[in-house]
Amino acid sequence: MKSSLSVVKIGGNIIDDEQTLDQFLHLFSSLEGKKILVHGGGNRASRMEAQLGITTRKVDGRRITSPESLEVAVMTYAGLVNKSIVARLQAMNTNAIGLSGADGNAVRAHKRPVTEIDYGMVGDVDGIGIDTVSALLQAGLLPVFCALTHDGQGQLLNTNADTIASEIAIGMSELYDTTLYYCFEKAGVLKDKDDNNSVITHINSKRYEELKESGVISEGMIPKLHNAFHALDNRVGKVCIGNTQMLLAGNQFYTTITL
Amino acid sequence: MKSSLSVVKIGGNIIDDEQTLDQFLHLFSSLEGKKILVHGGGNRASRMEAQLGITTRKVDGRRITSPESLEVAVMTYAGLVNKSIVARLQAMNTNAIGLSGADGNAVRAHKRPVTEIDYGMVGDVDGIGIDTVSALLQAGLLPVFCALTHDGQGQLLNTNADTIASEIAIGMSELYDTTLYYCFEKAGVLKDKDDNNSVITHINSKRYEELKESGVISEGMIPKLHNAFHALDNRVGKVCIGNTQMLLAGNQFYTTITL
Repeated sequence: MKSSLSVVKIGGNIIDDEQTLDQFLHLFSSLEGKKILVHGGGNRASRMEAQLGITTRKVDGRRITSPESLEVAVMTYAGLVNKSIVARLQAMNTNAIGLSGADGNAVRAHKRPVTEIDYGMVGDVDGIGIDTVSALLQAGLLPVFCALTHDGQGQLLNTNADTIASEIAIGMSELYDTTLYYCFEKAGVLKDKDDNNSVITHINSKRYEELKESGVISEGMIPKLHNAFHALDNRVGKVCIGNTQMLLAGNQFYTTITL
Repeated sequence: MKSSLSVVKIGGNIIDDEQTLDQFLHLFSSLEGKKILVHGGGNRASRMEAQLGITTRKVDGRRITSPESLEVAVMTYAGLVNKSIVARLQAMNTNAIGLSGADGNAVRAHKRPVTEIDYGMVGDVDGIGIDTVSALLQAGLLPVFCALTHDGQGQLLNTNADTIASEIAIGMSELYDTTLYYCFEKAGVLKDKDDNNSVITHINSKRYEELKESGVISEGMIPKLHNAFHALDNRVGKVCIGNTQMLLAGNQFYTTITL
């Protein structure tokens, strides 16, 4: 039997609030078994861009990663945010090790091809360095990934943190019985998006289609659920979506997604 | 018999010049046996401080690390410089993994006590996470350290890269037959500091005292040689000082230091 592995992704809203981040890290560090953390960048990158006078370009509401934006992403994601999380986890006696996708060739990607939109220095994931990540886990280390990948030719690339988390969960499922947690500001997938008490506790493929059709699931949740089902279609056992309390032992007030 | 380990430190002058850095990384990646890279920050941190309007405070010519300066150090050393080096090494099929001292609890330090001068967020090294570093080496990974440590209480600290390199070499000497390389812009310890052809090829403790007394070794070289002898006093087999060509097979035109 494979041993279990939790891949937990936290979003910007958790990172940007010191207190929420600390609460989360305490829950995360007491989570049983082998685990991996994936974090987004939060608003540090945007603030740094503003301070440096870099304007964030958007096309059709989608952020374009210019070479200057990528530099800021590398500084803030792999530098400030990643190392701050690692140092805090170390203070909780959790032996964290921070990684970008270049470290240990852990997340390989290629620059997204230019079609109608040129997204700039954005990477689409090709594969996970299963051997490296597995060696770290075996050594008792807890990998903490920021949302950067590399192309193997010396180029770092910006990649969506949800995607990195699902790709890591998929890759590691070869060796582990993997659960993927998407941890964000809401208590789960909600029937009423403004009511945290309206959590839908279980979604499967059939229910997902119904919820999309009826318009209950829309906007920001669709890419997240798309990533979730992509992971489930590729050997990940279970995907959970909720807020930091999701990791609290005994709590079942979040959304569990299965095929 | 212990297997051999090379700990190579590169300074700012190598990092700041793209071509020199690439030359160095090629030589480094073809170096035989297990190896660790330690890098300084170069002038990226100072340039970033200037861009962000942070003034670098100095007392008696010594740089003070304010909390703002530390943030910039974390962004540039652990972010930009470290990840750029790791991505380039990956492009040379060298399985590099970038680390600050917080990662894997690899370099523990305490904030330097305030005496006449308050150096700010500067760390003096307490010890090396030998188990972590050794596990990485055993997994075929090449650790690339930036010049940041942590205090185990969640605080990152700025630490001199020469010191980190010597402390890592000392720590790893418990398990490996370790050689420490200080790689900088000059060809070695020079008789005439303006003549790269005046390399002193061998220095031992006795010669060191003579060279200090006669004034041949002065200024910037004294702390470097102090670190070198500190390493030699603590089980490191050999310290070599020279430029990037030092790593070229067959070249002996650099300074070797033994007890």
